Amino acid sequence: MTTELEDLAGRLREFARVREWERFHTPKNLAMALAGEVGELVAEFQWLTAEESGSPDPDALARMRTELGDVTLYLVRLADVLGVDLLEAAQSKLDDNELRYDADSYRGSARKAPPSPPAT
Amino acid sequence: MTTELEDLAGRLREFARVREWERFHTPKNLAMALAGEVGELVAEFQWLTAEESGSPDPDALARMRTELGDVTLYLVRLADVLGVDLLEAAQSKLDDNELRYDADSYRGSARKAPPSPPAT
Amino acid sequence: MTTELEDLAGRLREFARVREWERFHTPKNLAMALAGEVGELVAEFQWLTAEESGSPDPDALARMRTELGDVTLYLVRLADVLGVDLLEAAQSKLDDNELRYDADSYRGSARKAPPSPPAT
Amino acid sequence: MTTELEDLAGRLREFARVREWERFHTPKNLAMALAGEVGELVAEFQWLTAEESGSPDPDALARMRTELGDVTLYLVRLADVLGVDLLEAAQSKLDDNELRYDADSYRGSARKAPPSPPAT
Repeated sequence: MTTELEDLAGRLREFARVREWERFHTPKNLAMALAGEVGELVAEFQWLTAEESGSPDPDALARMRTELGDVTLYLVRLADVLGVDLLEAAQSKLDDNELRYDADSYRGSARKAPPSPPAT
Repeated sequence: MTTELEDLAGRLREFARVREWERFHTPKNLAMALAGEVGELVAEFQWLTAEESGSPDPDALARMRTELGDVTLYLVRLADVLGVDLLEAAQSKLDDNELRYDADSYRGSARKAPPSPPAT
Repeated sequence: MTTELEDLAGRLREFARVREWERFHTPKNLAMALAGEVGELVAEFQWLTAEESGSPDPDALARMRTELGDVTLYLVRLADVLGVDLLEAAQSKLDDNELRYDADSYRGSARKAPPSPPAT
Repeated sequence: MTTELEDLAGRLREFARVREWERFHTPKNLAMALAGEVGELVAEFQWLTAEESGSPDPDALARMRTELGDVTLYLVRLADVLGVDLLEAAQSKLDDNELRYDADSYRGSARKAPPSPPAT
């Protein structure tokens, strides 16, 4: 991971250690907590039109920022507990997507590509 | 954001541009896509015990890594489109949590703290 | 619950019993499975405009129907394992919402009502 | 649907009509709202052990019941707006699952069955 993501992961390790919360931070529980926070993030957009979502008012943007922060905390913590490098996992997935969704075939289209071997 | 998160955001901008996918990437749609990927991540853990989730077999870990990659891609893309700095949002939220969940009162306990002003 | 929801819950109990799956069907696991299926449902809508979502083509509608079926199965199973009557819980919540969102104050507006005591 | 699910769907139609909220109730938005509520439901379980989740204290059970009610409201509303019969969709999916997960092969095992044609 990057130095700053590593720093955040380290801060989260200490945060859990000092409060003796490690036993709650099983990957299973962290995945659930992440899902809970993503639910709160989604709720910020549910009644907005696409256009409104692109230009949120300051209060709405502040709430979105808060929820994005919560999601990031649990994502980084979960990856750290599992020993997964988030940046590498993301870059690797994007490499795959660049091959599967070649620009000529998929320009302007949202259709899903067939699974590439090995099946994800 | 960090140089590497900025690099990833930049790669995602180009990925969308080349395929003329920007019109699909409204924050509303990206939040939904993020929720969809978090659903796939959660599904990797749903039948595991807490212990199994902490020591996944290689195939399971590989699938978790793939889903963590997908979640990261949409999170970084959503934050970039909204103009939110993910690292700052996360650090800021962790600062708040350190104040709200003081170690003496919350050691070993998973109970939720009352909301701190201003209400989130 | 209704006779048909009770029938479905009974079918699900038998389905789990015959396969000796009860030990996987803790409420915690069932809540995760429900979240996973809702993720799949949300993915069917993520790139659609609001209008497209209201008039899906036959294939898309068939996939939405499948995911709605999966979500319903886990919701009914989770409620049954917890001993919660889904219909009563829903009617009761709708009674609350009718009081909190009085038509005169909320007509045409999507804003959230303040929490009503006791806090939900 | 059953008479009681139909009654609930009818109550929800009237609830939206009286408040002039139909324009917010596109399937896309309702799917997001459902995801948001499932996030709140999942949060009730995230720090519980499997055993604790099976025997929640009265306050926790009351909160789970509330969230199950919210999830049911959006699920019924979404299905109604799409014209999908939830009970039929669920029974149909369970028929499929009974064929795919034959008891002799899957007894006691949580492994996923290969997709059955046509691919879901």
